[in-house]
Order: sequence, then structure tokens, then C-alpha cells
Amino acid sequence: PLEQQDALFNLAEKELDDGAIALILESQPIEKRIHLWRSLSLNHSVDVLTEMRSDARYSIIQSLSSIELDLVLSRLDNADLIEWADYLPDEIVQKALSLIDEQEIELYDQANEYNDEEIGRYAERKMWVLAKSLRVRHALRLISRDPSNTQPTIYLVDKHGTYYATLATHKLLNAPLDAPVLSLADQEQPALQADLGLLEASELIEHAEYDCLPIVNEHNRLIGQISVRLGMSIIREEYETTLMARAGLSESEDLFAPVIDSAKKRAVWLGINLVTAIFASITIGLFEDVISEVVALAVLMPIVASMGGIAGSQTLTLMIRAMALNQVSAGNLISLIKNECGIGALNGLLWALVIGLLAGLWFQSPMIGAIIALAICINIITAALFGVLIPMVLDKLKLDPALAGSVVLTTVTDVVGFFAFLGTATMLIL
Amino acid sequence: PLEQQDALFNLAEKELDDGAIALILESQPIEKRIHLWRSLSLNHSVDVLTEMRSDARYSIIQSLSSIELDLVLSRLDNADLIEWADYLPDEIVQKALSLIDEQEIELYDQANEYNDEEIGRYAERKMWVLAKSLRVRHALRLISRDPSNTQPTIYLVDKHGTYYATLATHKLLNAPLDAPVLSLADQEQPALQADLGLLEASELIEHAEYDCLPIVNEHNRLIGQISVRLGMSIIREEYETTLMARAGLSESEDLFAPVIDSAKKRAVWLGINLVTAIFASITIGLFEDVISEVVALAVLMPIVASMGGIAGSQTLTLMIRAMALNQVSAGNLISLIKNECGIGALNGLLWALVIGLLAGLWFQSPMIGAIIALAICINIITAALFGVLIPMVLDKLKLDPALAGSVVLTTVTDVVGFFAFLGTATMLIL
Repeated sequence: PLEQQDALFNLAEKELDDGAIALILESQPIEKRIHLWRSLSLNHSVDVLTEMRSDARYSIIQSLSSIELDLVLSRLDNADLIEWADYLPDEIVQKALSLIDEQEIELYDQANEYNDEEIGRYAERKMWVLAKSLRVRHALRLISRDPSNTQPTIYLVDKHGTYYATLATHKLLNAPLDAPVLSLADQEQPALQADLGLLEASELIEHAEYDCLPIVNEHNRLIGQISVRLGMSIIREEYETTLMARAGLSESEDLFAPVIDSAKKRAVWLGINLVTAIFASITIGLFEDVISEVVALAVLMPIVASMGGIAGSQTLTLMIRAMALNQVSAGNLISLIKNECGIGALNGLLWALVIGLLAGLWFQSPMIGAIIALAICINIITAALFGVLIPMVLDKLKLDPALAGSVVLTTVTDVVGFFAFLGTATMLIL
Repeated sequence: PLEQQDALFNLAEKELDDGAIALILESQPIEKRIHLWRSLSLNHSVDVLTEMRSDARYSIIQSLSSIELDLVLSRLDNADLIEWADYLPDEIVQKALSLIDEQEIELYDQANEYNDEEIGRYAERKMWVLAKSLRVRHALRLISRDPSNTQPTIYLVDKHGTYYATLATHKLLNAPLDAPVLSLADQEQPALQADLGLLEASELIEHAEYDCLPIVNEHNRLIGQISVRLGMSIIREEYETTLMARAGLSESEDLFAPVIDSAKKRAVWLGINLVTAIFASITIGLFEDVISEVVALAVLMPIVASMGGIAGSQTLTLMIRAMALNQVSAGNLISLIKNECGIGALNGLLWALVIGLLAGLWFQSPMIGAIIALAICINIITAALFGVLIPMVLDKLKLDPALAGSVVLTTVTDVVGFFAFLGTATMLIL
């Protein structure tokens, strides 16, 4: 049946694009993954590796013989190598640099001047560039030299390579052959700076008038472009990173990484969260006396913690989105806090009532009902307040709120919740 | 200062695109938002509303006088109305239909044949279409009629409007005027079916050879196209929905919705999670005797619950991503379970050891150390197993794992964790 699967896979290879094949390979256990990858034609095999997430890619690279590795590395272009280099051991990157074209190395070095948060690193370097003094006939000649490599825009530059204007390629249709290209071009369209952040750049291209925008270095020299398609893959990766970060995972997490590697990575997150839980435990420890007196309190503790945690995570999620979209500023922070605390107050009162009644009936004790009602109300309002403040503070400390936010928030809601609940109980009962 | 802000805003209006203005408006409390929106020029104001999320958009629409509303509605095109209609009361949609052009109504009705999960509903209906029998000169004439509305592709159809081939517009450059357009076109490029899912469609356009792909109805008639840019906005919305769903929020959640409305929406999620917490409480309630004997158990409960919850959410997050990318199948499910349980076993043992030692020292009791070690180990492995199984089962039940997954998983890890912890304690201590 393995041969049968191989045949099916090879049939599929012809139909599928490299991205789809990469997804299939990622979904296979490592031995099968390597086996299927080897069955790809050489043309596809390198592009498929580039499309794969870094951990899965590395799982294949690690398994290659020295000769196979050389063959693969020699086929990389500068864009592939930039993508690969972030996650490969330095010796493999050096080896690749010794194997690829001079020209590709030069482009690689240019890209490498920017870090992985800057659009200059990922700028597409294949584009149509024309001297701004030329005419339509020259533009058409340029295009006829490389008709398969479509570009929706042509960039006009002066003799130093300084960016000047953007010309939508389709404007050359029906244009008189003698017209200066500059007369058809848009001189108002600014270029993006190469050190612009990835998300900002992808937002600009999403709403731009053109399907590609020029990118320039600090001397205003044209170094590349960003297309809508590149913007789309940036967006996808950025959101995936956020989604995975919520559970302390990286975007490159491999479904079938060796168990020991995955276990190590995840252990870190478990350890961080253990500290959180210990804070909660210490809080409870302060009130051992009242718990041993009234065990019902221990029974109800998860409800207090959970309601605060959930309410807080709602506010936190809303804040993280708003901050990613640059929607939070000093100007609206007070209004935001008022709003969230208002919502917290309403839900705090509602659920205090419900849970107070339930708990009072369950344990046949109005006192216990009253104690938990107070704790729930305090905890939900606190959760709303800290749901706004924690991501703001983390952001100021240059920590990613999507990664660290929920850990810190849970600590606060657990500690405050248990303190309110068990503290009130101690005062009223002991 | 309000006038000053207005002046700044109006200055910004000229520089910013509608999407950026929409983000600014969303970030303002409702009164300020309406005030700023009214200061927009009429040209912008409708497009900005379309760019806003539905809840924020509705907050403005609600505040309009009947005359203002008529003015706004009369300026909608079919694509705007499709976007608006999903979230507006039916009477406003009917009013809009009575105010807009016949032609727009027809396009609206066509779009309305598809539901909000199908690409046909959002197909762009402005495109370049040409009879497949024509020549390059005809194509150029078509384009010269509407040069401002660039399209990267031209679709060739027969006289019934049946889709035939895709022509990259730039191929017309340098082409002989007498050449048949069909000779330049790509007859292999298939069209997307209008009932295709949004995510599938956006994945196809992300990896397509062209910047736009044709969309056809069930009779293979061309009804519209999807561009990379449309694909990008679908991706963005899809990921935002997933991120918000984790906290039981909707993608359209407004930062400044009226407090009472937001409170109602969020109360539902709190209520659902309360049920979860009650299950945990009931489990603890079964073991009241042992807790009143050994209060240390109550102190340590949050650690047991938290470690299971975190480990489970790591597996769950990985599974949700893999399922969204179609990477999970009957073929690799067993391998996935093995892998995750292997990781769970390693981390279970590691943290059982660490926490067992800590707890044993804290309470000066090897017995308590042993009890919590066993519970942690059981709970982390169970969490891994259910982290794989729960999203699969939810998916089979047509429930969104991103929405319901963490609630169900937390219930399982809480109940299993407390049962293992307090159950073992009961056996060993009482």
C-alpha cells in the first residue's frame, strides 16, 4: 500500500502547487515525510521545502546526505536562502553561500541588511525598472525581453537608481509609442522605507491603488517591491503566530517533531504557568484555617477562579486586537477602561446573583451564598480592569501581550479571586 | 480642543484611505465616532462605513435621521449592500433596495443567491470580459473605454457567457493587433465554482498564477472574479474570527458598543463557562471528607487543574491549526495521538517530579508529594489525548473547535485532575 500511496502522491504532485504539497508533507510523520519528499521531482523539491514551516523543513534537511544537501543548497535563490537562514545552523548557511551564484549572494547580502521585522528583508527583487527619461517604445522593449515574468507596475528611476514614480503597466496599452513614460506615471505614489514593519507594510499594500508598491533604502534607492500576494502571506504568518502564541507555541511548531524536542519546548510554557499556579496556591494557603472549618469553600473555589479568568480573557482578547490595529491610545484609554469596567460591573452583579443563589441553595447557607457573590463581583470587575491594563503595561515593557497576557492576567484573577473569597469568609466565619 | 481635533482629522482624511479612517472611527467612543463621521465628505462617508466592522457601522447607522439614512443608502453599490445586509434589520435593507439603481439591485440579487460561506456572494463583479472570437485590437478598444479601472486579467467567454479562458492583460502589450485573443489566452486555467468555500477560494488565489481568478455559476457562466486583495481580506477576517472565538467574542465586536449590549453578549460565554466550573466543583464536592482532613489538598488544587489545562491547550491549539489547514486525516490520526501522548508522558513525568518534590517539601509530607505527582502525570497525559480527540469530535458534530474546544477541554482536565488528585488522596489517607 505504500507504493500505492506513492503513486497517488506523484499523481497529485502534478496537480498541486508547492504550498499544497508542503502542507501534505507537514501532515506526515517524519519517516513518511522524508520518503515522500524524496519522491518529488528535483524541480519541485526545493520549492516545496521553502514553502514548509521551518521546523518541518529542518526535519528533512537533517536527514539528507552531504551530497543531497549540496545539491539542494546549490539550487536556492536569494529569497529562499533568506527564508531558510533564519532557522538553520550557521554552517549550513555558509555552505549554501559557497554554492550559489555570485548574483544571488549579492541580493542575499542586500536583504540581510534588514532584520526579520523589516520589510526590506523580504522585498521582492525581481521587478521592472526603467530610466525615467525613456519613452513608451523603450518600456515595451523591456517587457518583451521577459514576457513570462509579469509585473503589474514599472518603477521609474534616475541614473543613480533613485525612485521617482510608479507606472501601472496596463497604461502602456493604447499609449502612443513616442510618449515619455513619465507622462503616464504616478509621481505622487510614495515608496515604502525598507525598515518599515511587516504588518504596516502589508496594511499599506492591502489598501494601495497598485498591486505592487516600491521599497527604497535610506538613500531613496529602489531595492525591491511588495506585492499584494506577499502582503497576504505576511498577514497569514502574523495571525498564525498570534494564535499559536496564546498557548506558548511558535508558528513553526511541527506536528511531528521528535517527541523529545517538542516536549522540551512545551515544558518552558508549563513551567511559566506553574509559577502562576503557585501564586494561587500560596493565596489559598493563607486561609487554611477557614477552609478546614468550611470545606464548601474549597468546593466553590474553581467557580470563583474560572469566572474571573473568562471575563478577563474577553477584555484581554479585545484589547490585543485593538492594539494590533493601533486603535488604543492615550486619547481613548480612559473611555476603554470605563466601558470594560461597566460591562464587568453588569456581568459581575448578574453572575454574583446567580452563583450566590446556587451556592446558597447547594450548601443550605445564605452566608456562603453571600460570600461567593461578593467574590465573583469583585473578581469580574478586577478582571475587566486588568484586562485593559495588563496588555498596555506589557507593551510598554516590549513584551508581546498575545504571548504573556493570559499568564499574567490569570495570576491576577486567581489571586484576587481567592483573596476576596477566602478573605471575606475568614472575616465572617472565623 | 474638539474643533482642533476635528481639523486634524479632516487633514488626515485626505491622506488616509477609507480602511484607516474606519479603524480610527472604531477606536472612538460612540458620540465622538458619530461626530467625526459626520465631518467626513459625503464621498468618503459611505465607503468608510463599509470598511467598518458591522457593530461599529450599525452604531452610526442607528444615529442617523431618516433623511440622512436615505442619502447614505442611496449611495450604496451592490457590493456594499451585500456587506451591510448580513447585519442590518430587514427593513433597512428593503429601504436600501428601493433607493439604489436597478442595475445594482440585479447584481445584488445575483450575489444574494449564495450564502455567506460561499465565494459567489463576495465575487467582484467589475471585470473585463471579451468574446473569445475577437482580436487584440478589440481587446485594446475595450480597455481604452475604461482605462482607470485596471484589471490584471481579461476573461474570454462565448456568446452565452460561458467561461472559456483567462488572458493576462499584459500579454496584449507587444501583441500583433490582428492576433486572435484566444491565441494569447490560457485555456487551462479553470474557473472557481461560486459555491466554493471562502477559505478554499482564498488559498487558491494565494497560490494562483494570476492576480485574479474567474468565478462561474453551476452552468459555467462567468459571474465574477476573486482578486488577491479580496483573498487577503477574507484571510484577515477568518483569522480574526478564530482569535476572537477563543474568548467567545464575535469578529464584529465593537470596542465601544453600549455597555448593556456588550454585557449581554459576553454573559452568554460566562454562563457556558460557569457550567464547566460547576462540573469541577461537583468533582471536588465528592471528596469533601479528605479535604477537611488534609487542607493542603485544597491549597494544591489550582496547580493540578492549571497544569492539565495548559498542556491540553497546547495540543488543542496545534490541532485546531492543523485541522484548519486540512492536515488531519484518518491516515495520521493514530500517529498524532501517539506523538502528543508521548510529549504528554515526558512532560507529565518531568513536572510530576518537580511538583511532587516542591509540594512534599512545602507540606513536609512525602505522601502529599506522591499524591500530587501521580495526579499531575495522569492529568497531563489525559490532556494531550483529549486535546487531539475533542476537536475531532466537535468537528464531526459541526461545532467550531476554536469556539467550543477550550471549554470542553477545561471541563475534562479539571474533572480528571481533581478526581485523580483527591481520589488518590482518599484512598491513601482516609
